[in-house]
Amino acid sequence: MSSTETPVHVLILAGGAGTRFWPASRAARPKQLLPLLGGEPLITATARRVLPLCGGAGWERIWIATGQHLLSPTRAALPDVSERRLLVEPAPRNTAPCIGWAAATIAREDPEAVVVVLPSDHHIADVPRFLEVLEAAVASARGGAITTIGIRPTHPETGFGYIEAEGAGGAGSAAPAVPRQVLRFVEKPSRERAEEFVASGRFLWNAGMFIFRAGDMRAAIRAHLPALAEGLDEIDRAAAQGAEAEAVLRVFPRLPAVSVDHGVMEHVAGLAVVPGDFGWSDVGSWQSAWELAEKDERGNSAPAGSVLVDAQGNHVVDLRARSGGAPDDRRVIALVGVEDLVVVETDDALLIVPRDRAQDVKRVVDELKARGQDRHT
Amino acid sequence: MSSTETPVHVLILAGGAGTRFWPASRAARPKQLLPLLGGEPLITATARRVLPLCGGAGWERIWIATGQHLLSPTRAALPDVSERRLLVEPAPRNTAPCIGWAAATIAREDPEAVVVVLPSDHHIADVPRFLEVLEAAVASARGGAITTIGIRPTHPETGFGYIEAEGAGGAGSAAPAVPRQVLRFVEKPSRERAEEFVASGRFLWNAGMFIFRAGDMRAAIRAHLPALAEGLDEIDRAAAQGAEAEAVLRVFPRLPAVSVDHGVMEHVAGLAVVPGDFGWSDVGSWQSAWELAEKDERGNSAPAGSVLVDAQGNHVVDLRARSGGAPDDRRVIALVGVEDLVVVETDDALLIVPRDRAQDVKRVVDELKARGQDRHT
Repeated sequence: MSSTETPVHVLILAGGAGTRFWPASRAARPKQLLPLLGGEPLITATARRVLPLCGGAGWERIWIATGQHLLSPTRAALPDVSERRLLVEPAPRNTAPCIGWAAATIAREDPEAVVVVLPSDHHIADVPRFLEVLEAAVASARGGAITTIGIRPTHPETGFGYIEAEGAGGAGSAAPAVPRQVLRFVEKPSRERAEEFVASGRFLWNAGMFIFRAGDMRAAIRAHLPALAEGLDEIDRAAAQGAEAEAVLRVFPRLPAVSVDHGVMEHVAGLAVVPGDFGWSDVGSWQSAWELAEKDERGNSAPAGSVLVDAQGNHVVDLRARSGGAPDDRRVIALVGVEDLVVVETDDALLIVPRDRAQDVKRVVDELKARGQDRHT
Repeated sequence: MSSTETPVHVLILAGGAGTRFWPASRAARPKQLLPLLGGEPLITATARRVLPLCGGAGWERIWIATGQHLLSPTRAALPDVSERRLLVEPAPRNTAPCIGWAAATIAREDPEAVVVVLPSDHHIADVPRFLEVLEAAVASARGGAITTIGIRPTHPETGFGYIEAEGAGGAGSAAPAVPRQVLRFVEKPSRERAEEFVASGRFLWNAGMFIFRAGDMRAAIRAHLPALAEGLDEIDRAAAQGAEAEAVLRVFPRLPAVSVDHGVMEHVAGLAVVPGDFGWSDVGSWQSAWELAEKDERGNSAPAGSVLVDAQGNHVVDLRARSGGAPDDRRVIALVGVEDLVVVETDDALLIVPRDRAQDVKRVVDELKARGQDRHT
């Protein structure tokens, strides 16, 4: 991308509160802040991965939307992000308001600027290919099309939304990244429909990545979410008088709580999608964290220094505060004769669950909530 | 027992270093110091259980033989034991020297005094019955017979030594505790022989409990272990001059390292055994700790506050230093969908092993030793 082109900004959505990675994830420590794959938090990897899109401006073009309760750990995970690029939502209102707010803020500087919206907690195996797909989407957005990325499905997943597009699938990862016309967005399907989708070769997974010119998003919001547009106008007017922060606190909690998918994307004509194969994962459970992790020859993923005797297929995660130092000073995790377990240790909890029941950790969180043990949820 | 009878002293053998309860047990924290069954260490329960034998003198008649490296935690587990009743072995020399030393020390006060020698790390379910059996053994010892306790076997165990005695078995727990003549001591048998032993009704388990008058043990040692007798004489002479401590340091490490079973019991004529059924267990593994533990209706033994979802037959032990306090301040252990596991947490280790492989924890200890991680073994 030449520096004479319109600038690219990246907005990373980093709110949320998950239970699927309990006890690692908590209300105050959602998934993107966890080093689930290797040493750094997912959000740090997410930001680092897309820096090449931002040209020479680098970190100055990375924006983070998050909540007040996550501000401190988010800053710690992203020390290079500028203070003025942190969009702190006073209240969670789903994705449309915060994407709208970011688009409005960036549009004030340059309505032609391209904004790349990305989830903060996904994994990408093939980063060069991912950047190639994003570049194609940026080019599409520069041409005036609100553009999304569609992941070529590898199996009939019922946990994702789908995007139907003519000529979307079948091409394989070697195919050039070419934008297609979006026919429709589809909600999470039944198993049967998901199988039809995958067989048709016309459907892609909706991975929550959106690319657009800041002004185009403002226009789309004005057309399809007028209440949101009015709120953003009010913030704009306050910003012109140097009173943005106060206006955000007042206006944001009243904005319509709607996802950008439902509120905008499903209604926009001329939406484009760039199909991609780049080893994408939403890292949806401990099972998928194990799948993505480095493993020994017996399929165990465990901290260095663990003692594994006749153990296989286990995923062991140690997130306790550590003393570090010599092996003799560290804690030892010993697994003998066990298979396919997820074992997670934090300073205040231990979880043991078979990998194929990893989704049941939410039952633990439910139980702790029922007991009023808020610190643990 | 009337107070006009010769006094009864209890000697609790509390040395050793086990690997079967790793990571709870360590070289510096053997099994008897662990609260494996309920809140107090096994040795504390052992001492408390036999206090009624000691009459009004109570704790003043409880002696503990241990090693220098275990002195501090042993004192902490038994704050009521008098300082002068702690026999600190300068070097581990198996059981004959320390029993001989205790017998010599007690004989100096009163050679007619009866000494009850007990392991420190066993469990007794039926304490009144146990005391009844011990009273019968004390009476037998008062009559001049070195006496042992034989456990009526419940299964053909190959991990224990056996004692053959005429009319030993078959009587059931309701039978009066009557001393029998010991025919012979037998080493740990093969499975086949163990089955014959149990079927014969003539064999009892050797639980390492011995009851004798102090002077009788001195005489038996003089007859069968003259080298030990000479060493004890030297300690006696030094004690007469107020220099016992120095003599023990000098003499003890040179004493023959032999068990009282091999060195004395197997050679003594007229040995008696009182057969007993009192719910005895040597608490030999995590499996047996689970068997003895209180369990919920699904067979789980776990700390209060644990979250158990579709979990059964698990044995969860948390031996970490705790903050205590409200449930919200404690650590949560959550088991989802797992069965028949042993899970043990300490401040510096976590073990997970199927209950039926609990004996394999020694492989973990071997591995840690091979790595030179002495702190963990």
